Formats: sequence, structure tokens, C-alpha cells
Amino acid sequence: MRMAELSRESGVPVATIKYYLREGLLHPGERTSPNQAHYNDTHVQRLRLVRALLDVGSLSVATAKEVLVALDSSEMSLHHVLGVTQYGLPLANTEQADEEAREWARATAERLLDERGWVYEEDSPAVDSLIGVLATMYTLGYADLASVLDRYADSAENIAEADVRYIAGLPSTESIVEGMVVGTLFGDALLVALRRLAQASVSATVFGSDGEGEEISPRGSA
Amino acid sequence: MRMAELSRESGVPVATIKYYLREGLLHPGERTSPNQAHYNDTHVQRLRLVRALLDVGSLSVATAKEVLVALDSSEMSLHHVLGVTQYGLPLANTEQADEEAREWARATAERLLDERGWVYEEDSPAVDSLIGVLATMYTLGYADLASVLDRYADSAENIAEADVRYIAGLPSTESIVEGMVVGTLFGDALLVALRRLAQASVSATVFGSDGEGEEISPRGSA
Repeated sequence: MRMAELSRESGVPVATIKYYLREGLLHPGERTSPNQAHYNDTHVQRLRLVRALLDVGSLSVATAKEVLVALDSSEMSLHHVLGVTQYGLPLANTEQADEEAREWARATAERLLDERGWVYEEDSPAVDSLIGVLATMYTLGYADLASVLDRYADSAENIAEADVRYIAGLPSTESIVEGMVVGTLFGDALLVALRRLAQASVSATVFGSDGEGEEISPRGSA
Repeated sequence: MRMAELSRESGVPVATIKYYLREGLLHPGERTSPNQAHYNDTHVQRLRLVRALLDVGSLSVATAKEVLVALDSSEMSLHHVLGVTQYGLPLANTEQADEEAREWARATAERLLDERGWVYEEDSPAVDSLIGVLATMYTLGYADLASVLDRYADSAENIAEADVRYIAGLPSTESIVEGMVVGTLFGDALLVALRRLAQASVSATVFGSDGEGEEISPRGSA
């Protein structure tokens, strides 16, 4: 197909496609004359992925390019490609905690990760984020909230298994990377909304009145 | 204790305490002279809660006041107070989806909520957020991602039970509301970080190489 058709097919404007070609985010089409090239389904699929990386994942063009280079290199495992992608995805960052708080947070995070036997890299943004959130909790006097960590980690494991099972069922390496970006970010938002809804529902049972739930005094439970 | 001591005890600057008093976020102390008042532990505890609502929860002063009014009204159940609080907490909002997408999203959300028997209010921000995220997914062509919803809802339920159990164990109504704000927001951030870590760990097993995991072809699994 020609450029105009590729644009219609993918929903990406011609000017944007040209920009992706210049930046090396999209592989060139097959040249048919000095001013024309033909594109095929691999271009449509790659455009979907580029859009997911940039628009849904908010990756920088440079990071998106790293992901695509890793993807196109036959020597890299898919796990590695997913790792490069994950490094670029946005996460809560917190830098205000002091050294004591960070040390407590680091020790708490390491204990959790080691106990669960999770494979992780010390400099991964997710480890940073976990330590940062724990350190902020500690600084504000909420260290005891860490008692829920284990239960959260159980749920995170369950969710991650569903995530990986979902993307492993996708038909191509490109769609797997795309599914990972999209699933991670939409998944975060879904999970937050579902957690609030589940909280409200459980709270109605435990703290509700109007004869709808067992009314208990806050002081009465342990 | 005097104002200066209350400030030291709570870590909140005197000027900020005066502002909270003017705004009605903190109840007045017991007046001992035209220019002096005495404060006690209820003020320290309330300041912790106000700080949690404003700083951790990013609630507006007006919403924080609504929470405190509900809290101080003996006619409102704790579930109601938690509801008012939850309405003020930040959530992903998405407004770009068209009517077709929103209808699909609404139907999908309602089916899920009804099947699970969750108690919910149609105008709750969490329902809005769930519908908004689903509608955006639909618009971008990722409606099939909704297949993970059920598994996510299972995990959300598990987490919410841990959340409510944690706050139900706190010693006062105020600390329960505070725990809810803090636990919800830090919990979101913890969960996102833990999910990434669990994904990386599961991905290493499923997609990894270097002899560390069972290497499978993406096409090979269902």
C-alpha cells in the first residue's frame, strides 16, 4: 500500500508517519520510485506499537527507539525487550525521604523480595519506586502500613500471572510488547478503580449502618 | 498544652495551625485568657488527620471539611464518612471517549459489578473512573483487554479485605479515616510497584533466556 493508505489503515496522519520514518521508529517501505514506497502489514503493526509506546506508555522517542532496537535484535530474549520497555514506563517517584527512612525502606523491600524469591534487578525503576513509597510512608509515620505488604504482593503475583498469560497469548512479538505497555498502564488504572469499589463494598458490610451490614465499633475489632 | 507545644508535638507550623483553626478544620482549644488557649491530644490527633487528608490525599480544604463534618456527626455511619473521603481522593479521569465507547464501557462495568454483587453508587468517582478507563481502552482498540477484568476484581477484593481489616484494627474513628486515606493512596503506589516487580519475575520465567527460564515461543502458548 502507499503512504496515504497506510495512514488510513493505521489512523496515523501522514506527517506523523514521515516523522516516525525519519526517527527510525518505523522501517522504510519498499522503494518503487524515487518519490514512492510501498508499505505492508508489518508497517501497520509497527505503527500500532509505536503509538502504544508513545501515546499510552508516554515513553520518550529515545526510549521507544531502544525498545524497537531490542525487539528487532534476534539476540535479545523477549524478557529483555519487556524489561527495556518497563524501564521506560512512568512510576511514582519520591525523593524527599531522608537516609534513615530510605534504609528502613530498602531493608523492608529486600526482605519482601527475597522471601518471595522474585527475580529483580537492584536498579530497576520498580524497586526504586517501591523503596521510595515505603520511605515516604516511614517519614510520615506510617511504617506499620507495611504490614499489608505481603497480602498486596500475593495479589500482585496473581495479577502478574494473568497479565503474562494474556500477553503470551498474543499472536506476534510486536503485539506482545504492545500488550505489555497497554496492559500495564490500563491495568494500573483498572486496578485502582476496582480496589476503590471493592473497598466501598467491604466497608459497607463492616462499617455500614441502615441495617445493611453488621455494625461494629471501630474500637471493638482487632 | 499551648499552641507552641502543639506545633512541636504535631510537627505542624504555628501559622498552619492558625489557618486550620480559621478554616474550621481544627476545633478550638479551651480558652484560658483572651490571647491563649489550651490544646490536648484530640488536637494532635486531628492535626495528623488533617495533614493526611490535605498532604497525602490531596483533598481540597472544602472536601477535607466535609469529611471532618461527617466524622463529627454522630448520625453518620463510618461507612458514610469513608465514602465522603473516598469521593475526594484523586483517580484517573478520562473524558475523551465517544458515546459508543462509553456505552460499551458502562455495560461492561455494570455486568462486572452486578456479577460480583458489589454494593456501589452509580455516581461514585470509582465507577466513573472504571468506565472512563474501559472506554479509553475500547477507543484505542484494546477492548479484549477486558478479559482480565475478572481476575483483577478477584485481586482487588483480596486487597480491599486486607485494607478494611487493617483500618478496622486502628484505635479511633479518626485514625480509621486517616488510615483509609493513607492506605488507599500509598497502597495504590505500592501495588503498582509490586505488580511491575511480579510481572518482571513471571516474565523471566516465561519469556527469559540464558538458561534461567523455560524459553517458549510467543506463538506457542494460548
